[in-house]
Parts: sequence; C-alpha cells; structure tokens
Amino acid sequence: MKVAIVMGSKSDLPIMEEAAAILKQFDISYEVRILSAHRTPEKVTEFSTSAMKQGFSIIIAGAGMAAHLAGVIAAHTTLPVIGVPIDSSSLGGIDSLLSTVQMPPGIPVAAVGLGKSGAKNAALLALEILALSSAPLRKKLLRYRDDMKKSVLEADSSLKAKC
Amino acid sequence: MKVAIVMGSKSDLPIMEEAAAILKQFDISYEVRILSAHRTPEKVTEFSTSAMKQGFSIIIAGAGMAAHLAGVIAAHTTLPVIGVPIDSSSLGGIDSLLSTVQMPPGIPVAAVGLGKSGAKNAALLALEILALSSAPLRKKLLRYRDDMKKSVLEADSSLKAKC
Amino acid sequence: MKVAIVMGSKSDLPIMEEAAAILKQFDISYEVRILSAHRTPEKVTEFSTSAMKQGFSIIIAGAGMAAHLAGVIAAHTTLPVIGVPIDSSSLGGIDSLLSTVQMPPGIPVAAVGLGKSGAKNAALLALEILALSSAPLRKKLLRYRDDMKKSVLEADSSLKAKC
Amino acid sequence: MKVAIVMGSKSDLPIMEEAAAILKQFDISYEVRILSAHRTPEKVTEFSTSAMKQGFSIIIAGAGMAAHLAGVIAAHTTLPVIGVPIDSSSLGGIDSLLSTVQMPPGIPVAAVGLGKSGAKNAALLALEILALSSAPLRKKLLRYRDDMKKSVLEADSSLKAKC
Amino acid sequence: MKVAIVMGSKSDLPIMEEAAAILKQFDISYEVRILSAHRTPEKVTEFSTSAMKQGFSIIIAGAGMAAHLAGVIAAHTTLPVIGVPIDSSSLGGIDSLLSTVQMPPGIPVAAVGLGKSGAKNAALLALEILALSSAPLRKKLLRYRDDMKKSVLEADSSLKAKC
Amino acid sequence: MKVAIVMGSKSDLPIMEEAAAILKQFDISYEVRILSAHRTPEKVTEFSTSAMKQGFSIIIAGAGMAAHLAGVIAAHTTLPVIGVPIDSSSLGGIDSLLSTVQMPPGIPVAAVGLGKSGAKNAALLALEILALSSAPLRKKLLRYRDDMKKSVLEADSSLKAKC
Amino acid sequence: MKVAIVMGSKSDLPIMEEAAAILKQFDISYEVRILSAHRTPEKVTEFSTSAMKQGFSIIIAGAGMAAHLAGVIAAHTTLPVIGVPIDSSSLGGIDSLLSTVQMPPGIPVAAVGLGKSGAKNAALLALEILALSSAPLRKKLLRYRDDMKKSVLEADSSLKAKC
Amino acid sequence: MKVAIVMGSKSDLPIMEEAAAILKQFDISYEVRILSAHRTPEKVTEFSTSAMKQGFSIIIAGAGMAAHLAGVIAAHTTLPVIGVPIDSSSLGGIDSLLSTVQMPPGIPVAAVGLGKSGAKNAALLALEILALSSAPLRKKLLRYRDDMKKSVLEADSSLKAKC
Repeated sequence: MKVAIVMGSKSDLPIMEEAAAILKQFDISYEVRILSAHRTPEKVTEFSTSAMKQGFSIIIAGAGMAAHLAGVIAAHTTLPVIGVPIDSSSLGGIDSLLSTVQMPPGIPVAAVGLGKSGAKNAALLALEILALSSAPLRKKLLRYRDDMKKSVLEADSSLKAKC
Repeated sequence: MKVAIVMGSKSDLPIMEEAAAILKQFDISYEVRILSAHRTPEKVTEFSTSAMKQGFSIIIAGAGMAAHLAGVIAAHTTLPVIGVPIDSSSLGGIDSLLSTVQMPPGIPVAAVGLGKSGAKNAALLALEILALSSAPLRKKLLRYRDDMKKSVLEADSSLKAKC
Repeated sequence: MKVAIVMGSKSDLPIMEEAAAILKQFDISYEVRILSAHRTPEKVTEFSTSAMKQGFSIIIAGAGMAAHLAGVIAAHTTLPVIGVPIDSSSLGGIDSLLSTVQMPPGIPVAAVGLGKSGAKNAALLALEILALSSAPLRKKLLRYRDDMKKSVLEADSSLKAKC
Repeated sequence: MKVAIVMGSKSDLPIMEEAAAILKQFDISYEVRILSAHRTPEKVTEFSTSAMKQGFSIIIAGAGMAAHLAGVIAAHTTLPVIGVPIDSSSLGGIDSLLSTVQMPPGIPVAAVGLGKSGAKNAALLALEILALSSAPLRKKLLRYRDDMKKSVLEADSSLKAKC
Repeated sequence: MKVAIVMGSKSDLPIMEEAAAILKQFDISYEVRILSAHRTPEKVTEFSTSAMKQGFSIIIAGAGMAAHLAGVIAAHTTLPVIGVPIDSSSLGGIDSLLSTVQMPPGIPVAAVGLGKSGAKNAALLALEILALSSAPLRKKLLRYRDDMKKSVLEADSSLKAKC
Repeated sequence: MKVAIVMGSKSDLPIMEEAAAILKQFDISYEVRILSAHRTPEKVTEFSTSAMKQGFSIIIAGAGMAAHLAGVIAAHTTLPVIGVPIDSSSLGGIDSLLSTVQMPPGIPVAAVGLGKSGAKNAALLALEILALSSAPLRKKLLRYRDDMKKSVLEADSSLKAKC
Repeated sequence: MKVAIVMGSKSDLPIMEEAAAILKQFDISYEVRILSAHRTPEKVTEFSTSAMKQGFSIIIAGAGMAAHLAGVIAAHTTLPVIGVPIDSSSLGGIDSLLSTVQMPPGIPVAAVGLGKSGAKNAALLALEILALSSAPLRKKLLRYRDDMKKSVLEADSSLKAKC
Repeated sequence: MKVAIVMGSKSDLPIMEEAAAILKQFDISYEVRILSAHRTPEKVTEFSTSAMKQGFSIIIAGAGMAAHLAGVIAAHTTLPVIGVPIDSSSLGGIDSLLSTVQMPPGIPVAAVGLGKSGAKNAALLALEILALSSAPLRKKLLRYRDDMKKSVLEADSSLKAKC
C-alpha cells in the first residue's frame, strides 16, 4: 500500500503537503514527486506506466491553470488517479477545476475540491480506497472521523459556554 | 464486490444508466437506488451507514442543482463515494458541479465530469478501485482501454482513407 | 420566539456574528451552534428534527464551499430555513451560493446574499417572519428602517455640505 | 393568511403558476399580480406599501434579467419577500439570480432557486412561514413531505423491481 | 447643463469621485447625492421624478451587489441614466454588472465598466451627450482626447528611449 | 437628429432590427450599416470619424463574440456610442457583454443588455438623449412609457379577472 | 508546407472540417488525424515527437471538455500548436477554452475561439504563419481579406438599398 | 526576424516585460511599443498596416479589460498576432481573455494564457514560429526545453532527497 503524490511544479508543494501530512498521520507510505505534464512529459509517461510495478496503489496529482497532469497520468494507468485542482492563476481556480474534472468518457479522474482542502481530501479519499482491503485502516479512518466530530462538538460547546 | 448507484430523482436515470451499463459490461454486481438527500434524508442516512454491511464497496451518487447527495452520503460512510454532477437546471450544471466537488476538508467526494460522460467515468473509476484487489478485473480494464484505443485508431484510419 | 444560528465551522463565526448582533439588538433570543453537515451529520439531524420542540421558530444556517448545511437542515424540518452562503474558497463564494440557493423542488431554503451582508439580512428576514405575529416587533423593524433612512439622508446631507 | 404572487411580466406566468398551484393545493388564498419594477414603478410602490393593509402576509416576486422586482418590493415593506429568479435571457439565469439574492445589508430578500423549481419552493417556503402560527398548516406540510417521501420510495422500489 | 451623480452608499464615494473629478475638469456643474434604492426608495422616486425640473440633464448612478439603483431611477425618468456597477462583494462585481446592464426591454440604462474606470467613463459619456448641443464642450472633449493621445505617445517614446 | 445603427455582420440584423423598429415608431431618421471592426476596419474608421459630419448624433453598434465594434467606433468619435452585445457564440453572450462594457478609462461606451431587449433599449436610450433638446420627442417618450404602463396594467387586470 | 489537423474524437470532425476547408481553399496540404490525448496517449506522443520529421510545419488540435490535446502535443514538439476549444459539454465550452488557453509558462499553445469560428481561424492563423516564408501565400491571404471586405461591403450596400 | 511587443497602457509593462525577457534571452530583436486601440487608434492602424514593411514578423499584443488591441491589430495585417490577455479589472481577467480569444471568423488572433505566464508563452510561441525558418533557433528552443526539464527533474530529486 503506497501512494504517489505528484505535482506539476515545485510551487504546488505548500498545497500538496496537506495530502502528505494526512498519509503520514495514517502511517501510509507515500512518495512525493514533481512531474510536469508539459515540461517533462516523458517522465510523466514513464512514471504513470510503471506506477503499478513500482508498488503504487493510488496516484494523487495536483496542478494549476490548464491542469492536465491528472488526466495525462490517468491516460497511462488503470490505477485510480485523484486530481487536486490548484488555484494558481487570476481566475480563482475555475480553470484548473474544469481542466481536472471534465474528463472525456473512458478515462476517469477523481476530482476533489480546490487547494488545501482538496489536497487533504485527496489523501482521505486515497485512504478510503485503501481501507477497502484493510480493516485496521478502516478503523483508523473511523477514529479520525470521530476526532473530527469531537472537535466540532467541542467548538459547539465552548461557543455555547461563551454566549 | 458490489457497487451502489444512487440518484436523487427518477429523472436522473437516463444519465446514471451509463454507469450501470459499464458495470454490467464488466460483470460487477450493482444496485440502483433512488434516494433523495432532501426528500428522504433518513433513507439516505440508513442506506449510507449500512452500505458497508450490505456488502457495497463503492457508492456512485448522481444529483443535479444544489447536488448534496454525494456529500451527504460521504458524511455517513468511509466507503469511497463518487459524485456525478447532473446538468438539470438552466445553469449548465455549474451548480451541481460545485456542490459536488467543493467538499470541505475531512469528508472527501470523488467528483467526475458532468452528465453521461461523468456517469460512465464514475463506473470506470469504481472498477479501477475494485481492480486494486482483483487482477482479473485489472486485465479486463486493460482490454477495455485497448478496445477504446482500437476504436480511435480505426476512426483515424477510416478518416485518412476518406481524405 | 427563538432563532437558531447554525454554522458549519468555527471559522464561520466572524460572518455569522452579524446575524447574532441584529437579533440581540431586537431582543430576540437566539442560540448559536456549530454543526457540520459532513462532520457531525447525526447532530445536524438531531438538531433539525427537534428544533421545533426546542422552541425554535426559524433556523439561520451559514456554510461555505459545497454548502450543504442549510439544505440538509431543511430536509429534516418544516421550519423556515434561511441559508447564508459564505465566501471561504478561492471561487469568491459562487460555490456556496449555488449550493445553498439551487435547492431541488420540494425542500425550500431561503437564501440571502454572500458573507456579512447576507448574515445581517438573514437575521432581518427572520425578524420580518417573526413580526408576522408580533406587532411590537413589526414596529421595531419599521423604526430600524427609519434609522437606516436617516443615516442615508444624513450621509447625503453631509456630502452636499462638503461639495 | 394571504399570499401575493407578483411577477414582472406576463411572460413569467408559466413559471409563477407553479407557486400558485402549491398554494391552491394547501387552500391558502393568494392573489396573482403583474407589476413591473421598471414599467409600473408607482404600482409596485403602491402595492408593496399597502400589502400589509391588504391582508397579505408574504409576497412572492418573480422576475428575469436584471431582476429588481423582489428587492424593490422589499424596500417598501417589512413583510417577508421571497424572490424567484427567472431564466429569461441568454445567460442561463445567473443575471436574475445575482440581481435577486445579492441584496445590500438592511433590506433582505429570501431568494429561492431558478425557474419552476424555485417558484414551487417559494410557495412551500411561504407555507412554512405561515405554519409558524398555524398547527393545521404545519400538519399539511408534514403530510406533503410524507407524500414526497412515498413517491421517492415508490420510484426506488419500482426501479429495484425492474433491475 | 447639470449632471447628477448618485450612489447607493457612502462607501461608494471613492469610486464615484472619479466621475465628479472629470465633470469638474470640464466645468460642468454637478450634484453628488447618496440615495439608496432599498433604504430610501421614496427619496429615489422623489429625486428621479423631479430630476428634470431640478435642471438635471443626465443622471449617473453607481451601486454595488444587486445594483438596482440605476434601473430604479430609470423607471422614473426619461432622462438618460448611466449606471456604474461597483465591485463591492466577493464576486468581483459580476453581480452589480449584470444587475445594472441586463435591463428588461422598455427602460434603458447605459452601463459602463466596473469601478473607477467605469465611473470616469460615465462622466465622459455624459459629456459626450451634453456636447451634442454644445460646440465648445465638443472642442474640450476633442482636446481631452488629444491629451490622452499625447500621454500615450509620450509613454511610447520614453519607453523606446529606454529600450 | 439622425441615428446610425451599425452591426458587425449581416447575421446580426434580426437583433438590430429591434432598434430600427423603435426609431421608426418615433419618426427619427436612421441609417442601418454593416461594418466590421475586423473585416472592414478602414470603413469603420471612415464611418466613425465622419459620423458627425454626416449628421449623425448617436451611433448604436451591435456585435457578438469578442465584440470590438462599439469600442473601436468610440475610439474615433466623441459622439455617444451605444453598444449592443449580441449572443452569437456558445457562451451565452458573456463574451460580447464583457467585450462591450469593460472599456478602459478614457473612451466610454454605453452598454445595454444582451440581444433583442438590448437592441430595443439602445434605441430608447438614443431617444432619451435626443429628447434632451427636443420637447416633442420627450413627450412622445412619456407617451410610450404610458403605453407600456397601460399594457402592464391591462395584463394585470385580465389576469385578476381570470383567477 | 504541410499542416496537421488533429482532433480528440470523431465527433469533433464537423467542427474541424472548417479548418480543412480553409487549407484546401489555399492549396496547402494537410492531414486530418483522430488522436486522443487520453485514449491513445502513445499515438499522440509518437505523432507529436515525429511531426517535424513527417514534414509538418504547424499542428492544429481541436478537443472538447477538459481539452488536453493541444497542450499535450505542445509538450512534445517545438512546432507551433494551435488549439481549437470545442463546445461539447453542458458548460458552453468554457471548460475546453480554459483547458486549452491557460497553459503554464514554458509550453505555449496558440488558442483560437470556440467551435467552427475558432477552427476556421486556426487555419487562417496557420496560413499567416506559413506566409512568413511565402510571398505568394501572403498575396492569397490579402486577396482572401479583400474578398471578405467585399462581401461585407456588398451586404452593407444591399441593406442600404432595402432600407 | 524582429518581433513587436505592443501593449495598451504603460501599466501593462510589468506583464509584457516577461515576453521581452524571453526574446532577449534568445537574441531575437524586438521593439516594445505602447499603442492604445482606443486612445491612439490611428497609431495602431499606422503601426499594424506598416508592421511588415518595418520588418516585423510577429506582433505580440497585450491588453486588459475589453482587450481589443490584438484584434484591432490583426484586422490590419496578415502577420501572425499573438494576444496576451491581462488581468487588470476586478473580474480576474475573464473579460480580457474572452475579448482576446473569441475573434469572429476571418481574422485570427493567437491567444495565450492570462498575465505573466501568458506573456512568457507569447514570446515562446513567437520563437516557435520564427524557428520554422531557422534551424539554429529551433536548436535553442530545444535546449530551452531541456533546461526546463532539468530544472523540473532537479526539483524532483531534491524533493525526494528531503522526504
């Protein structure tokens, strides 16, 4: 069980680290790669055609603007590819969102939301997929959800106390 | 290995049948359900909290307008939830797309593209996930991709012949 | 006559406090709650199904991104639900606005504008509703409008004086 | 308990009839009016300043394009005003939606979704408001919700039977 | 020849001052007014129905969000009304732009661009209209254009010198 | 008093005829021209630099897509230029609207709404401008408004009669 | 001098034929290919890396939805790549437009407008590029422009005759 | 081989310098001009009709808002014109993007992405065009791509080292 976190540019790292942090927290091994669909297309092909052999189960790919990375990776592998659209132009990210999610029929990409929230959710989605064959991971996920619940409930309580 | 195809309204069926057709073609069992996040919220809760026990591995959820279905299901299960935004208002589907994909951090939804293409890709994404623990399914997926390739190549050849 | 102000996350408080301030100014009791449609769905169900019994007349619900909160609450109660879309992603709030307002037929949400203006108007809308059965509240609302008028007229006069 | 259904143009009638049909079904009296914020502004002022005296509790206002009707009515009354944005230009209704919902602070409009779904929900929202002081109406609303539920459940069952 | 510059809120003044500055530069008398379509509707009616008698030839109206001001004024006068959409919400001004420009047939508003550029152009458009019956004003406008030309040509020359 | 109605392509005629019909109805002379900012730029320059000498007071310019026509004409004349954005691409007209209205500071265009409504309003705006120096035209405009009012009131009455 | 016209799917042919028709009219040889960035990525790589050797000077690439084709080709060649966004989803083509034009720095794509107009202009842009080293082609282009001019002037004249 | 870099306003220089920097790096001569389609239309005509005689092969034109510059230049020359939309209004640049790219059939503009990335790519696109008749320039372009590749690979390696 190993996850690849790929991004199109070094500048995407502060966003994609959110995904890495979640995988680390769940003790899932991952590799972080910078691979550009446009500047290093051969590397992307090489990486994605061999991803399964390299032991990856899932690929998380983040990119901005005309975000082709997730789709190009998906074209070369039947592993699930999760696309994180990144808000890096003046258009608020609608460009990367549409470039990521509107894949033509036949080659799916699993798109999550824009930016840091999306990167975090990409990792959680990867964990949900991996948990299909790992009861302990499923348990950890349930605990994670419980912790989120508790933190919301505490915020709710402390707010009530204040008002 | 069983997939649930859920939709918010009977009128979404022509779209979501695309997903069913793919699963059928790959001999994956599935159930098609009409469950509305807004009109039958208890049924959605009941369904999604028990989905794992019912033997489902993945849930595909299609909805239009303020498309809350996928997100609401995802809130009740740690199974992977794939959201299909459906174009059923006058806004071209941007409403359902954003309502599906822009999930807050903590509860992921795997969004695919709008409408029939999206529904088809939702099923293919589900297959890619299931194939993580099924070599035969992986092989079928590769064959499916080969068939797509061949059909593109043939279109390319027959076009060249014509010109 | 009691109003609930619900929000999806602690970070929405600076926005939703605008609603609380208005209700306070009109001596209408209210409770402020943090309840997440995705992270604490049971709490949302529990809260919204029992809201009437708890003495609430109206529920104001604010959320950002794929803002499902108002719609999910509305699914569990026939009390009027006022939705405040919050601008908390890179898309300027068009995601939360569409997720809040484009409800499917059958389950209404009363959407107001984005952010602080919207939160303030949500409270005023709640007061207009409550005033249907309270002549004194209606009077207070008319005075509030008069005060707004005066403040615009004063701004107009002081501007004329300056020019 | 009387509801006004106002629209900016005769051509909006096929949309706004959805609201009338719901009110009829619930035996709530209503009046349907054609009043244009731009072509008959005095009539709009006259109507909205006297709406309360005329016995109206709620005003539902539908308009397309730069949809000012709901906002202009709201400026003249402290009755709750529900705005129905209508898709009547080439922009898919985003013009009327934003013109209706983005009210400045101080004068609220309760916006619902675009077109027929919105008109229907406007009436249901009006009923929810009226039900605050009418237990029988509340019961009818609960029955209406039950009927919706049943119809979804039946669609679900009949679909299961077919598959 | 007198121009009215009207705005919906004191906070719009920094934008609308651009219009005033142009009129001042051309020695055209103007009055600046704060009148809110929603908070002081009677004042808007009073102002716009009497604008012609007050000696105004043209009305420039600036407003943000659901910007109804220009349209509401236009409904009460046959004087030319120039609308300046102001970017004062999180949507970048697309709300005020559409609310200003998409007027229904019968009541025209002359919309200019968003914000300061728009306010400046509103004044220049007013001058172009006034110049239809004033040869000296037409000459001043031509000189203004010449000055703009010169400043562009100088910028061009000084850039060439640098490169 | 003569108005020019210019359009970028023969295919815009069905839209721009709405403007011509209004001018005809008000007995204002006009000329209809097909001049393309991109295909006949010299003709546009020639026309717009000589428009005043040709006796035109106002220029109405309609164009679709990247609608440069109104702006290009405005660059060559200080006559008021009214721009009609035409919906002729797959983007619903947002392209022509923004290309028409978002003029840079210095060269104003008076934009009206999209399509037929906009073309009609362009003519009415032209009439409002011409009426600044023609009391009889002002009277005709007031009568036109009265007729609009009557037709709304009649629609209102006949609707009341039916219900 | 040979141009490649590539498209992502057979269904794009009616659009891309506009480009072919122009090239034919100018006696420029071209090849039409169907190559999918997602379904036949190796063929796209093979084609684009060898395009120069195959004698192509320019590549015109049309695709819809998350239109990656032009960008992916551009990543493999330093030949000029012209991207034609095609309107084939419910979003009016804004998805393919942004996916085509918003290329990250380093790998340019020359985007033209949506659909048939765009395809035609793609071919004309290719001709303009080829004409840089072919005076006869430049002459033909000037004649083509003259013909367009004439056809606009004739439309203008015949319209004047009618009015 | 000489390239013109034209912009509508001095304030566009920080963006357009990105294009100049690339051309400098490749030892291609260029001239930078400030020419406004609206404020100096004659200069734009003069420049673009004589551009070929002045020895220019390609024109790069950057402008914001209703960005007519590239289109207007293209109307006067059959040289390839590359349009750089600049984000200079509150709309995030969607106004300048659509005004640049959505050219009507007959007069092509090669649009690149928004802002600095777009300006850089405009220059690279110009180089790709010039390289059609210059093998040494082609080689330099290939080296530039290799350098980009290396920098991505290094970023990838240094990231792997860190993790």
